[in-house]
Amino acid sequence: MEMFNKYCFIGCEDNFEESKLVIFGAPFDGTCTFRPGSRFAPYKIRIDSYGLETYSPYFNRDLLDYKIHDAGDIDIPFGNTISTLKKIKDFSKTIINNNKKPLMIGGEHLVTLPVVEALYEKYSDLILLHFDAHTDLRDDYMGEVLSHSTVIKKIWNFLGDNRIFQFGIRSGLREEFEWAEKEGHTFINKFNYDKLKDVVNLIKDKPVYVTIDLDILDPSVFPGTGTPEPGGISFNDMINILKTIDSLNIIGADIVELAPDYDPTGVSTAVASKVLRELILILANKK
Amino acid sequence: MEMFNKYCFIGCEDNFEESKLVIFGAPFDGTCTFRPGSRFAPYKIRIDSYGLETYSPYFNRDLLDYKIHDAGDIDIPFGNTISTLKKIKDFSKTIINNNKKPLMIGGEHLVTLPVVEALYEKYSDLILLHFDAHTDLRDDYMGEVLSHSTVIKKIWNFLGDNRIFQFGIRSGLREEFEWAEKEGHTFINKFNYDKLKDVVNLIKDKPVYVTIDLDILDPSVFPGTGTPEPGGISFNDMINILKTIDSLNIIGADIVELAPDYDPTGVSTAVASKVLRELILILANKK
Amino acid sequence: MEMFNKYCFIGCEDNFEESKLVIFGAPFDGTCTFRPGSRFAPYKIRIDSYGLETYSPYFNRDLLDYKIHDAGDIDIPFGNTISTLKKIKDFSKTIINNNKKPLMIGGEHLVTLPVVEALYEKYSDLILLHFDAHTDLRDDYMGEVLSHSTVIKKIWNFLGDNRIFQFGIRSGLREEFEWAEKEGHTFINKFNYDKLKDVVNLIKDKPVYVTIDLDILDPSVFPGTGTPEPGGISFNDMINILKTIDSLNIIGADIVELAPDYDPTGVSTAVASKVLRELILILANKK
Amino acid sequence: MEMFNKYCFIGCEDNFEESKLVIFGAPFDGTCTFRPGSRFAPYKIRIDSYGLETYSPYFNRDLLDYKIHDAGDIDIPFGNTISTLKKIKDFSKTIINNNKKPLMIGGEHLVTLPVVEALYEKYSDLILLHFDAHTDLRDDYMGEVLSHSTVIKKIWNFLGDNRIFQFGIRSGLREEFEWAEKEGHTFINKFNYDKLKDVVNLIKDKPVYVTIDLDILDPSVFPGTGTPEPGGISFNDMINILKTIDSLNIIGADIVELAPDYDPTGVSTAVASKVLRELILILANKK
Amino acid sequence: MEMFNKYCFIGCEDNFEESKLVIFGAPFDGTCTFRPGSRFAPYKIRIDSYGLETYSPYFNRDLLDYKIHDAGDIDIPFGNTISTLKKIKDFSKTIINNNKKPLMIGGEHLVTLPVVEALYEKYSDLILLHFDAHTDLRDDYMGEVLSHSTVIKKIWNFLGDNRIFQFGIRSGLREEFEWAEKEGHTFINKFNYDKLKDVVNLIKDKPVYVTIDLDILDPSVFPGTGTPEPGGISFNDMINILKTIDSLNIIGADIVELAPDYDPTGVSTAVASKVLRELILILANKK
Amino acid sequence: MEMFNKYCFIGCEDNFEESKLVIFGAPFDGTCTFRPGSRFAPYKIRIDSYGLETYSPYFNRDLLDYKIHDAGDIDIPFGNTISTLKKIKDFSKTIINNNKKPLMIGGEHLVTLPVVEALYEKYSDLILLHFDAHTDLRDDYMGEVLSHSTVIKKIWNFLGDNRIFQFGIRSGLREEFEWAEKEGHTFINKFNYDKLKDVVNLIKDKPVYVTIDLDILDPSVFPGTGTPEPGGISFNDMINILKTIDSLNIIGADIVELAPDYDPTGVSTAVASKVLRELILILANKK
Repeated sequence: MEMFNKYCFIGCEDNFEESKLVIFGAPFDGTCTFRPGSRFAPYKIRIDSYGLETYSPYFNRDLLDYKIHDAGDIDIPFGNTISTLKKIKDFSKTIINNNKKPLMIGGEHLVTLPVVEALYEKYSDLILLHFDAHTDLRDDYMGEVLSHSTVIKKIWNFLGDNRIFQFGIRSGLREEFEWAEKEGHTFINKFNYDKLKDVVNLIKDKPVYVTIDLDILDPSVFPGTGTPEPGGISFNDMINILKTIDSLNIIGADIVELAPDYDPTGVSTAVASKVLRELILILANKK
Repeated sequence: MEMFNKYCFIGCEDNFEESKLVIFGAPFDGTCTFRPGSRFAPYKIRIDSYGLETYSPYFNRDLLDYKIHDAGDIDIPFGNTISTLKKIKDFSKTIINNNKKPLMIGGEHLVTLPVVEALYEKYSDLILLHFDAHTDLRDDYMGEVLSHSTVIKKIWNFLGDNRIFQFGIRSGLREEFEWAEKEGHTFINKFNYDKLKDVVNLIKDKPVYVTIDLDILDPSVFPGTGTPEPGGISFNDMINILKTIDSLNIIGADIVELAPDYDPTGVSTAVASKVLRELILILANKK
Repeated sequence: MEMFNKYCFIGCEDNFEESKLVIFGAPFDGTCTFRPGSRFAPYKIRIDSYGLETYSPYFNRDLLDYKIHDAGDIDIPFGNTISTLKKIKDFSKTIINNNKKPLMIGGEHLVTLPVVEALYEKYSDLILLHFDAHTDLRDDYMGEVLSHSTVIKKIWNFLGDNRIFQFGIRSGLREEFEWAEKEGHTFINKFNYDKLKDVVNLIKDKPVYVTIDLDILDPSVFPGTGTPEPGGISFNDMINILKTIDSLNIIGADIVELAPDYDPTGVSTAVASKVLRELILILANKK
Repeated sequence: MEMFNKYCFIGCEDNFEESKLVIFGAPFDGTCTFRPGSRFAPYKIRIDSYGLETYSPYFNRDLLDYKIHDAGDIDIPFGNTISTLKKIKDFSKTIINNNKKPLMIGGEHLVTLPVVEALYEKYSDLILLHFDAHTDLRDDYMGEVLSHSTVIKKIWNFLGDNRIFQFGIRSGLREEFEWAEKEGHTFINKFNYDKLKDVVNLIKDKPVYVTIDLDILDPSVFPGTGTPEPGGISFNDMINILKTIDSLNIIGADIVELAPDYDPTGVSTAVASKVLRELILILANKK
Repeated sequence: MEMFNKYCFIGCEDNFEESKLVIFGAPFDGTCTFRPGSRFAPYKIRIDSYGLETYSPYFNRDLLDYKIHDAGDIDIPFGNTISTLKKIKDFSKTIINNNKKPLMIGGEHLVTLPVVEALYEKYSDLILLHFDAHTDLRDDYMGEVLSHSTVIKKIWNFLGDNRIFQFGIRSGLREEFEWAEKEGHTFINKFNYDKLKDVVNLIKDKPVYVTIDLDILDPSVFPGTGTPEPGGISFNDMINILKTIDSLNIIGADIVELAPDYDPTGVSTAVASKVLRELILILANKK
Repeated sequence: MEMFNKYCFIGCEDNFEESKLVIFGAPFDGTCTFRPGSRFAPYKIRIDSYGLETYSPYFNRDLLDYKIHDAGDIDIPFGNTISTLKKIKDFSKTIINNNKKPLMIGGEHLVTLPVVEALYEKYSDLILLHFDAHTDLRDDYMGEVLSHSTVIKKIWNFLGDNRIFQFGIRSGLREEFEWAEKEGHTFINKFNYDKLKDVVNLIKDKPVYVTIDLDILDPSVFPGTGTPEPGGISFNDMINILKTIDSLNIIGADIVELAPDYDPTGVSTAVASKVLRELILILANKK
């Protein structure tokens, strides 16, 4: 009998041991300040991935050509941010210690913090490529230091200057822009990704982590997100970004901030699934 | 690590061999004449079942007390009705031949036909308990004999008179009611289930198949269906029905016609999931 | 060739001349104070009527047994209340002068006023049966005398005392209840229709107009309306009402206040369509 | 000029000092395990309250007859449960210490804990009347002791036996029911409120806090909630409950678990607003 | 009286005999593998066309300048693919044999097959211009040869090489691209329509059929479709395409794969209606 | 205690006297012919503005740097167009006579008429910059001269030739385009804003009123509007427009035609809020 009984991203049915790339979900949205719901992203992306093909005409690669494991989701203790982050970090270390690469599906942006912490223990020269509508450089949000609006600042705390490159940014406090731009702590490419090629040349020998807050996309393309911010890039821009970074030494990545219930058309999930497919094909294609 | 990586109904994670009850999905909606989408019911019921508890205070039973296998879904060749029905019948026979009971999640109502055919090969004295808003007794729909509006008539073709008991019926052609009531081919309890206890007494020694078209429920309770028909029963009525039939020798069952996308509140899926939980607890509790 | 090319309520395809009953739409919602959109009711009811059967098991009557004309919709000059009401009155008079009965699909409740005015010119002893959640007895709304919250008061202005019977009322100003109940200008059956049988006996020799504001139904049954008012009656209650008034000399009727876009499940339209089917079968069945 | 510039519940525009009843919102949903979004309830209830009248025909009372202050919402530090609860407790104490009664709009059910704590400091013989679909008696949820599924157990920790009366309960772990029923720690009226009158007689001399988890209502009436649980009570049942408790010495109350975005029809918010109106009319009517 | 009683596309109210262009609907979605619902496209396009003007500033032409007949919809026997296709082919031949041009509103893409078959009987040198996100060049889908994912391959079976030109294609199996591109059976312009002008020059003397699968548009523009595929063209690109092909000898056309219920904003239907208006103005403007 | 109790646009909490810019809402949609609901725009824009930052990286300005008063909404007498327009005009004059600038949130486009009338009494050389998808140049709509499709023609009646400049126009009657273009009564830049810089140079010494019908934006960006018209500009185009007009002597402005309920994603409201933020930063930045 042909029976359909899967709960993993299309074409990612290999087991942990044989795979070099491990996908997992972090369905946490506890610090989201505006519209929650990114907790539903991982399962929705997996279900709707069956509306995609495994073959990408953009990269002329096929998911079926690689060994990829989909590990399912971290079980989240809702209401406890610190314990959640610890669980994500622990699983990330399991992946890294087994010489595999992590590819995480958020959840909100704070989930990026523990993965980068885990990778930083192995790669002390780690570079962060950050695609987003928002700066995420606050010190705290209403007194809380762990928040999806502080996550990049928390990463800067240990990575330090000249390690973080931000693209597509079009929203933030005046103070955040000034801290980043005037004081030079991070590199911000406002509104678009004009400087991406230059940055890619600059960091081409370094281990790179890529975090994609999908709200970098214009809300017309991707309305299903917690804080829609008009004025973003198109899907074809996103493809251009992915082609541009394909040559880098990417040692981990994530996509975050899909809140699928806010888009009844299902298109936001289709967009996230397709970005994930291309991202898998970039990471899996590395030796 | 605690990881969440399941795609089966809550509490139904046992394997095929050890289970006496086998759940499977038949995500087919090809003959639906008004609003399609019951194909999405099986996966949605499984996902949202995690909003339920495994314990039922109605029956004081717990899913965790039984061995139950969720086999996943039949792979449907969309556009080919005959081939679809054959696949469902084949898998039903696999279940029956292994001395297990089938519990199917539709899909539209036509999927009931092959399961009943398969059971009839083993139980020649089979009784059909049919809960529905619609008669489903047409000979054909625009010339097509295989349709969700003809399914009970097709079953009558081999079961014959005095075997089919219909409850909650409130829509149909005048000719269908006359064929059933005046000519006495099936028993129709219009609008409600007043006669259910009498019928249960009548059939208590027979093998019984239970088919629940969820549109028997009032659309206020269950809007997510292809052909909503105002004037139906409440959820507590449905619980009463289930308690009333708990004593019968039920050898198979199904729930059909959830079309989850038509109910953005998700309540229709919650209703279907809870009916399924109670139905499992009835079937699994038999020796 | 079988082609489908209709824009009329199911089973109401007869021409004007041969029909004793004329259905028409009045897609006006200009004075609605909370949520507009009842303008979309007439077309939506027609389209979705094809999800119904023409046969009613409640009355054991079939639309195909009668001659019924669906005249389409009044063309509304949006923004001009007075001119809209005049158009409705003119068409109502055309129907009445041809010895036919009007059955109107609103639109908001103000559209009832011109139809009753037109009938009153012929039937000076007219009785109004009013089913609604709201009193609609204000003198004005923010200074405007023509409003869906003043319509029954405007009708009282010419009908006078002892002519208006209101059922299901559960919302209004304290002053409206006092005016009606203490001063005795209209009869109000609060919350339900307990007194309907008594009223039916009282008015059984009179010409009766029936106006059904569908928000008399509980919002669980009928959420697609401008001012949902929890605590209403069920669909089966509505069927009981219709059976109770079947014996009266009804010379016109309407259903108003469906705002279909507020109910994405489509159930509110299904409810309205079915109420309309039964109402047609009551009016068309008269000699 | 008449301008409309309000952000408070209809008819509750009096200032803090002159009011005996203080309404406030607690828009927190951080421990919700299934569907978040109750954070949006307070503002939505206020906005849609203008679709209601200030007069209640159920109680024959009018909001305009009383002095009521709407204080707005607690500013929530999302992601920090402990700090959130402290803020709610602090504001509750401000209300209580000024000899006023608190009436809170949740948020999820955990927000009830700090209000009851604050009242318990003043009323050591406090009784809790709990209306809900769920037991909420877990010790912890995945290790977290502060959760909307543990809230009543946390309150029991200081109130102790014979103080908590639960109605409408139809979901929970078998262990929770056994702890409450067999061991007698709380009183559970399963499925409905049959025993409410007896309980009212029993506690009529005590100070009473009333917490209404709106998911006690059937999801047909109230789909906009995090964990819809079919089989609940009707809106008219809720009115009966409120009339039954009107004679009690209620010293505070709340309504929780409206998640308005899950109900695009807006009806769930209309239901919550109307329950709140009647609750205000009960509390404000006390000397 | 002005009454509104139409069920045809705006400005297309002429009768069959006097019209050179005949519009009809084929509301079939039986082989759709992901999200059904394109059956609702024809009626929705007609209803919402009244939100458009009859005048196009793009072409400076007006629908009222031409004779156009809207024939309504083919009556579909749901569940029977072969009988459905035969009905479409029969009506297409009726149009063609009366020296008129067919303009079909789908339905899913498989409905294109019978129209092209009918035209091929008259035009043996027929060219197919195919605009789509998907290749549609499979031999079968799960064993079924008649499917919306095989339709172009089925047409190739009789048209043969050098007759089919595909634009906007961004999804398919690797094998489909290789069959088309490497073996040269069809011309594929991936992702966009860069080569359209060259192709127009190449085929300018031939009879051309134009099939527009509206999912060639980016899902931001057109989310209401069965298989949304991010990365498509804009609406203004579509206008450019239509202007580019205006000079060709187009002898028939269709638009397919609008599934309106998946887009609650109604924008997808507005897009389809406007594409159809321009397409009518192209075909009707030919001598 | 930190409490949140505001009902004004973010960062606009200054009082009337100290502010040079006054925001107010005109929630009227009475003449809308297709889809009503723009009445809900003002409150929704205010609520969702808290998802924005007060700082604009486009202009490097911050709302907190200016004194801005949000006066709330005009109380609308629904059903009476003339009385509504008078109220808007009266409040506009109050603003103007106090030497402040009006910035109105519609409502439908007809609300622009009374504001321009009020300003024209002070500025006889007033220029109108009009951004829209539609011409709005009809003389009447079904006989009604006051309509959102006649508003610019009504303004032309007193402003006269060479005063009105229209951009983005892509829909209208042939007669409207001919009246404007051939006879030269207004300047129409069809489809886009190519000529905006030239116009800005031309009018740089004049007092200018800016009216932005948000449906100038493509429906992919802004689906939540009464008459979505595919083929519009992007959000970044809108930013370019705003930067281009920043140098002008703008003495009043409005944004109209957001109908938020038609966009369940909330993105249309986010777009409107952000356009309003930038518009405030332009008007408030003038001396």
